[in-house]
Amino acid sequence: MTELIHRNSSGVFVIAATPFAEDGTLDLESTDKMVDFYLECGVTGMTILGIMGEAPKLSDAESRIFAERVLARVAGRVPVIVGVSGAGLDPMRSLTSDVMAAGAAGVMVAPMQGLGPEDRLEGYFAQVCKALGGDVPICLQDYPLTTNARFSVDSILKIARDNPQIVMLKHEDWPGLAKLSRVRAETGTPDQPRLSILTGNSALFLPQEMQRGADGAMTGFAFPEMMVQVVELSLKGDHDRAEDIFDAYLPLVRYEQQPGLGLAIRKETLRRRGVIASARVRAPGPAMSAMDHDELTRLTSRLEKRLKELG
Amino acid sequence: MTELIHRNSSGVFVIAATPFAEDGTLDLESTDKMVDFYLECGVTGMTILGIMGEAPKLSDAESRIFAERVLARVAGRVPVIVGVSGAGLDPMRSLTSDVMAAGAAGVMVAPMQGLGPEDRLEGYFAQVCKALGGDVPICLQDYPLTTNARFSVDSILKIARDNPQIVMLKHEDWPGLAKLSRVRAETGTPDQPRLSILTGNSALFLPQEMQRGADGAMTGFAFPEMMVQVVELSLKGDHDRAEDIFDAYLPLVRYEQQPGLGLAIRKETLRRRGVIASARVRAPGPAMSAMDHDELTRLTSRLEKRLKELG
Amino acid sequence: MTELIHRNSSGVFVIAATPFAEDGTLDLESTDKMVDFYLECGVTGMTILGIMGEAPKLSDAESRIFAERVLARVAGRVPVIVGVSGAGLDPMRSLTSDVMAAGAAGVMVAPMQGLGPEDRLEGYFAQVCKALGGDVPICLQDYPLTTNARFSVDSILKIARDNPQIVMLKHEDWPGLAKLSRVRAETGTPDQPRLSILTGNSALFLPQEMQRGADGAMTGFAFPEMMVQVVELSLKGDHDRAEDIFDAYLPLVRYEQQPGLGLAIRKETLRRRGVIASARVRAPGPAMSAMDHDELTRLTSRLEKRLKELG
Amino acid sequence: MTELIHRNSSGVFVIAATPFAEDGTLDLESTDKMVDFYLECGVTGMTILGIMGEAPKLSDAESRIFAERVLARVAGRVPVIVGVSGAGLDPMRSLTSDVMAAGAAGVMVAPMQGLGPEDRLEGYFAQVCKALGGDVPICLQDYPLTTNARFSVDSILKIARDNPQIVMLKHEDWPGLAKLSRVRAETGTPDQPRLSILTGNSALFLPQEMQRGADGAMTGFAFPEMMVQVVELSLKGDHDRAEDIFDAYLPLVRYEQQPGLGLAIRKETLRRRGVIASARVRAPGPAMSAMDHDELTRLTSRLEKRLKELG
Repeated sequence: MTELIHRNSSGVFVIAATPFAEDGTLDLESTDKMVDFYLECGVTGMTILGIMGEAPKLSDAESRIFAERVLARVAGRVPVIVGVSGAGLDPMRSLTSDVMAAGAAGVMVAPMQGLGPEDRLEGYFAQVCKALGGDVPICLQDYPLTTNARFSVDSILKIARDNPQIVMLKHEDWPGLAKLSRVRAETGTPDQPRLSILTGNSALFLPQEMQRGADGAMTGFAFPEMMVQVVELSLKGDHDRAEDIFDAYLPLVRYEQQPGLGLAIRKETLRRRGVIASARVRAPGPAMSAMDHDELTRLTSRLEKRLKELG
Repeated sequence: MTELIHRNSSGVFVIAATPFAEDGTLDLESTDKMVDFYLECGVTGMTILGIMGEAPKLSDAESRIFAERVLARVAGRVPVIVGVSGAGLDPMRSLTSDVMAAGAAGVMVAPMQGLGPEDRLEGYFAQVCKALGGDVPICLQDYPLTTNARFSVDSILKIARDNPQIVMLKHEDWPGLAKLSRVRAETGTPDQPRLSILTGNSALFLPQEMQRGADGAMTGFAFPEMMVQVVELSLKGDHDRAEDIFDAYLPLVRYEQQPGLGLAIRKETLRRRGVIASARVRAPGPAMSAMDHDELTRLTSRLEKRLKELG
Repeated sequence: MTELIHRNSSGVFVIAATPFAEDGTLDLESTDKMVDFYLECGVTGMTILGIMGEAPKLSDAESRIFAERVLARVAGRVPVIVGVSGAGLDPMRSLTSDVMAAGAAGVMVAPMQGLGPEDRLEGYFAQVCKALGGDVPICLQDYPLTTNARFSVDSILKIARDNPQIVMLKHEDWPGLAKLSRVRAETGTPDQPRLSILTGNSALFLPQEMQRGADGAMTGFAFPEMMVQVVELSLKGDHDRAEDIFDAYLPLVRYEQQPGLGLAIRKETLRRRGVIASARVRAPGPAMSAMDHDELTRLTSRLEKRLKELG
Repeated sequence: MTELIHRNSSGVFVIAATPFAEDGTLDLESTDKMVDFYLECGVTGMTILGIMGEAPKLSDAESRIFAERVLARVAGRVPVIVGVSGAGLDPMRSLTSDVMAAGAAGVMVAPMQGLGPEDRLEGYFAQVCKALGGDVPICLQDYPLTTNARFSVDSILKIARDNPQIVMLKHEDWPGLAKLSRVRAETGTPDQPRLSILTGNSALFLPQEMQRGADGAMTGFAFPEMMVQVVELSLKGDHDRAEDIFDAYLPLVRYEQQPGLGLAIRKETLRRRGVIASARVRAPGPAMSAMDHDELTRLTSRLEKRLKELG
């Protein structure tokens, strides 16, 4: 039986891509290979059907087929979180119910586009928690750059207090270092239960976020082994080595962080690494130019050189 | 066999509500009654699964069940347009294919949230048209207040030239009177095919828009008989009478135009008029307060008094 | 000595236009005439240098010249509020200090574009109040459609509690009737001082807002005599008559509410009424087309006819 | 006599900070020192009164005092561009006229917040160019993340064709590499005059942008010597060395790129380097926490170590 996500979940929950064949259909063989690859990289969890996973481009049926395939392949070895954000609570409840039955460890919810002011965010999460059922652990996604919904720290704390099933924060406000420090300092007190904090934003500030008390990362960088090393070293307190490794990858982290295009770059990198068969992104979506391909080649070969220097 | 929408479609294409029972499930009996009501009001078409129709809160299966029910009840008496806007072309193509097979007269497409700049809007509609198939007539929805995607007149014209299956514009930029005048003046020329222009924005400027050359209205005001009268009178050139009638309803038009809450007001009005059994809006959604209910009562009774005065 | 604005200020604080000559320079003679006109209409206050007053298009020196001219002409007969919103506290403090010395009754402050989340709004008003000095009464402007800054009711209440010099709320959230009702119900209690609530949003909901407890209006509709009558009748409880008058003007209220273009329409209406010499709007700004001019003529003549009917 | 900016301007136009004393007044001595510092770093130009220069927080008088001080100190050794973006053309014309008379080499203009669709951007720049006068060279700033105004490449080209005084593009769309490549490829043809392209966005993609044909950088990174080296090496074709140096600074580039807070970090770095006396940012503005200070210290010391390794 799979462990559910909880207030002390830590490590790297990689945001999994959704592999498609060249004809645009779900590629379930690549899905298996990708799951194996992530597990070999040492991730402690996976998150599927996130925005980066192209969830909104799947039909209801495809979402379930993909989720079930991942859950079957993972087979309980690590917890899997499923993104269920949507415009209506009824479809969210239905998807949640299906994936929890199939072995998911929890779900991730971001507010609807533009939702505000904050009392409406608070009301929304109250509704969501009630609709999904109190036994489903939830990761709240704070990603204003994409959702245009803005949480203050006080709102996050209030929502977490009022809804005990919210056990995890996907932190990707930007800039967000001060927010992370405050959430860390102000949770885990007698009045405010602890939250697992996993950082997103393409890992652009991963070492700094770990030094400020994050429990790990939840993002989809195509070299998950970097995130695994940085998180492990950071949790052991070896920040110098963590930053040395991180800095070597930073040119690529930054390159993959380009909004929109980043997904194409990520999939192409996974394809080059032999993880998935096709880099196809469902339409409408970004496409890499020849120049982008050359840049990626150049940056990857510079990374290899730099990693050798580092030893 | 149903007539497809075309460049000279005119009249009132009412945006149909999606009726739910108190328990939140689709209310198909109310759906039938609502279709009958709209037809009795004299509408010349219907549009379903629009944003106001709570389309994003339906599952894939519910969308099809609802569309098929409406299409069956309408039985070809008037053309029905189906909103198919979405984040991915594959689900859009699938829904389009299903509803066209069931007798829809065309589909309506708005760009994705925040899409821009305009070359991306142009590219998007090229992709959409190709994906949906050249024989499916399309109504382009220009609704920047909600989509945050901004078309210049030149972009609308270019998209319409490049994609001959785009035969209709749902005009709801705001303010948008100048835009409407330009689209009317600059289409129907040797180089630029005519577009049917139906106006939205809750009909707040309906008589002015008709005087500027709109072909009709496409919005969901809960007194569709007003829109039918105003459009008919306007097309006959009796603008004074059209405005007299419109102005009588304007306090309610304005009241129903409140973003978000307007949908609850519209459904409650339809319920009070005996059209649908429940005013329920799917969560998360707006709810009317006791004060809102009293206001609606007051405004409706003032309308009745004013209509008597008008004769 | 002028009375300052306070927690019980009520009536119509008309948002004054900023008249320019055809060459774009400040037209101070028209300014005097406009002040006289507003006073003859029976306004109980004036607000200058608002967004609609084209404040951001004035130089620092022009702002002061215009404010001083208005204040001199008003000569203490009614309180004058000066909009001082800006990107930096230093210029805001300087302008505030100058206009208060010249006899202003208070200042109006909206948050900077996009400011959020709400703890930042709270922090901002704390900084503003400190910078402007505790003896300057402030009207907080809640206008998310323009500022993209979103206050919950709780934030407004907290800001008002923490900063006793905030005595007035310019209410123009949209939709905002529920918010207005809550602010009215939850202020004027032992723990929460009363706020004067004046409504904006072009007066589109003025009778409804008065019925929900607003103290009056603060907007710039070019027929201020309507607002004066509606507010007076509403405060006396004669809501039927108030709405009869309001509804007669509603087609024009709606017409003037068009974002951007509304300012040109307002100035043109004031010009036609003989209040200001030129309808010029400083560049970059909207311009009325010939069709707009005809529409305004038509709507105005319909208003006259309707007013006669009403008696 | 100063050289004006032109279609072949290249190198590093550093965005200059605006130094304040601890009491918030302009610090003109630090201004002189800062100018000297930038010149010693080898910059080929300067840009003042940009958004990062806190221009909107200065009074009209302060803007002129500061600009004149910088221009006097530079004394024609390098071209100085002055940011004049604003809400009204009259104040923009006045500032432009004053700074050009004082020796500026051109001005920079970004569109107003939220301006669109693109025909309005085109109309706006036509108005601006006419207002400022045809002999003033203009740098068009394309910065949608801040202005929420979105240019397609075609609009940029059209605006540049229609207004020959626009000779430079400050490129900071994000992601923007494809846009940069297209502007470079499609200018400098018989029909489309060349544009100098200087890249912004905190230099996060500087080597990639240089490889794609940028002429240099225009941003305010607190180690301008890095930008000078990278641009020089790139222009010579030594991309490996350029990237080696850039990558060493990348952790700090990324750190300074945090929206809002970045300005405080930049000023603190300049203060630590002895360039300006105080890191003060005018209110309302960001402040660094103790943790931010420690992070900056750590990142700076890691930079020093890395630079030694690089030799």
